[in-house]
Amino acid sequence: MSFKTTEFFAGRLPRLATLFAMVTAAPVAWSQHEFDDAADDQGPIRISGNENAFGYSPAAMMAMMEALGDINRYARDEATAFVQAISSFERVPASHIITTAGSGPVLLMTALAYAEPGKNMITVTPGYLQLSSAFERAGGEVRSIPLTADLAHDLDAMKAAIDENTVLVYICNPNNPTGTIVNPDELRAFIRSVPSNILVFVDEAYLELADGGLEANSMINMVRQGNNVLISRTFSKVYGMAGLRAGYGIASPEVIARLRPFHMGGPNLLALVGATAAMQDEASFAENVERYRSTRQMVTEALDGMGVKYADAQGSFVFIHTGIPVERFQSLMEERNILVGRPFPPKLDWARVSIGTEEEMMTFIRVFREIMTAEGRLASR
Amino acid sequence: MSFKTTEFFAGRLPRLATLFAMVTAAPVAWSQHEFDDAADDQGPIRISGNENAFGYSPAAMMAMMEALGDINRYARDEATAFVQAISSFERVPASHIITTAGSGPVLLMTALAYAEPGKNMITVTPGYLQLSSAFERAGGEVRSIPLTADLAHDLDAMKAAIDENTVLVYICNPNNPTGTIVNPDELRAFIRSVPSNILVFVDEAYLELADGGLEANSMINMVRQGNNVLISRTFSKVYGMAGLRAGYGIASPEVIARLRPFHMGGPNLLALVGATAAMQDEASFAENVERYRSTRQMVTEALDGMGVKYADAQGSFVFIHTGIPVERFQSLMEERNILVGRPFPPKLDWARVSIGTEEEMMTFIRVFREIMTAEGRLASR
Repeated sequence: MSFKTTEFFAGRLPRLATLFAMVTAAPVAWSQHEFDDAADDQGPIRISGNENAFGYSPAAMMAMMEALGDINRYARDEATAFVQAISSFERVPASHIITTAGSGPVLLMTALAYAEPGKNMITVTPGYLQLSSAFERAGGEVRSIPLTADLAHDLDAMKAAIDENTVLVYICNPNNPTGTIVNPDELRAFIRSVPSNILVFVDEAYLELADGGLEANSMINMVRQGNNVLISRTFSKVYGMAGLRAGYGIASPEVIARLRPFHMGGPNLLALVGATAAMQDEASFAENVERYRSTRQMVTEALDGMGVKYADAQGSFVFIHTGIPVERFQSLMEERNILVGRPFPPKLDWARVSIGTEEEMMTFIRVFREIMTAEGRLASR
Repeated sequence: MSFKTTEFFAGRLPRLATLFAMVTAAPVAWSQHEFDDAADDQGPIRISGNENAFGYSPAAMMAMMEALGDINRYARDEATAFVQAISSFERVPASHIITTAGSGPVLLMTALAYAEPGKNMITVTPGYLQLSSAFERAGGEVRSIPLTADLAHDLDAMKAAIDENTVLVYICNPNNPTGTIVNPDELRAFIRSVPSNILVFVDEAYLELADGGLEANSMINMVRQGNNVLISRTFSKVYGMAGLRAGYGIASPEVIARLRPFHMGGPNLLALVGATAAMQDEASFAENVERYRSTRQMVTEALDGMGVKYADAQGSFVFIHTGIPVERFQSLMEERNILVGRPFPPKLDWARVSIGTEEEMMTFIRVFREIMTAEGRLASR
């Protein structure tokens, strides 16, 4: 193939993408054989990393396919369009937004910007460790407060752990790995009660899947009202674009300026185009939310039926009390070609199971029942 | 379009990509009209940002098109394959490699890892400022050594500026904005003469385009031999994938470990797949190098014909002594729909012009001649 093919493609991708859309919009009978091929390619059932098994917006895929002809240039308008889409969605000015390659960099930048010897941050255990681990590596002290008996944030205990050297409170809401959320009124009261020089970081990676969604639960209004709050959001979870690396942080311009020295760049051109298109494809988003909720409900109802305990599941995963040491549980599942979540100390006889497709979760439930029965964890019935 | 279309695509993209390849490998008569349409879309001639106007490997485009069905997952094997491709290309173990979103993060991480009050780094002026600006912001002192009369690195003066508080020397080779390179034997001798606790950072973003290419000029062998040297490389220039954000640094595991706390992640899944495929498409790479060299030669021969001075051009751009204040020169060019490089103090009557396509550079030469004549900078002939 001649190298000139690149230019050939560049001019034609929009037309080819349109052609794709036309072809695929028509109802066509595909042989089962092809679907089976695709299924064979997928390897194990991977419900270990809170990835989205449903996929992502076809409009985003189209937009990226078109943009394949543009990546010899740096992103310019694409970056502006993404910030505008976020600004419109979150109802905050562009000065309050920092875009990143997934939301991970927001967590890491915050750790680097706030950690120093003698300063401390408050978080929970078991909780999501990316920020607190980096904070500790950077010389800060991490105060990890145990969750309540319901495996939820203990805001009173977190409040009590704050002292004059506290610079940061991290709340992953819903919490990873437990999936529990904080009551929004209580969280607002907590934020108002914390000294205003302390940054409250609310990681809302999974919040679209909580009861009431973003509207009922997001702390974005606390940013808008001028509180010292930072919200992070990602396209890796509900939007189904983990490999694309797109996310952002929202906070006051002063907080954003403090993170900026550690900023290594925003999403790449394809991620900018894909994420922007995904935000505008509200139907796909709503369908993903609905599939997550209904599949999660299928799992929790099955657990209820078995009499197995789990934490209130408000994210894209369920934290299950198996009563089996988690490493053993992982092995038993892996023998059956299912990958489940890693150990989350100190809850070492619980397991985090990500929500996969309906079919994958039916397989999981069947295998789970067999393993739990064989291990003597289920009453025979 | 149904949201299910995503799954539909995911299974079929490899086949569709193959179909593309078959269709486009066949010689087809396309109407000139279509090409004109594409040209109209491009806006101004953008020879301001050292972007690659030739495009990138069609094999890389194919690989990315196939991978569009995988981005709901985090990159795993894709990241491993990229590191393996780099390891094989550079002949260094994976422990010596850090992959990043373009090479910019390597520069920024180095600034953050090495800068502190009381410490200094050595660089040149005019030079590429991304690393030194970040070093200064992080509290370090930057010692900018003037270039020689030929606008090349003055290694003796750089050596003389080193003192007991020097932690870093930065050499962009070829230098941006001047395009000059350092003689490789002299650079090796310089590296050997610098105290071994000082890191010598050699930014080889454009080095494939220098006379003799990487083989004759790269300092990678100095890394292999255990010197305190860091090499950065990018897919934004010769590979033509600036918007994709893929690059890497090569150094000892100790240096890599020092950068690691500031690492915000590698290239995204599509960038990993695209860059890996591009490295394996040696024919496309060679064609791009050849086009760059021949188009650059066309420009320098035209400048020779006009009797206009320029720095030895070993990168993807030419630094031209217009004798016109650069901001005025930029305006005059922009009036003619051509964007050229920004001011690079103290050389304020020089202009950096990136190499665009053959056609774009023919237009540039024509317009340049007209402007220089109108400004009385060319002897009438």
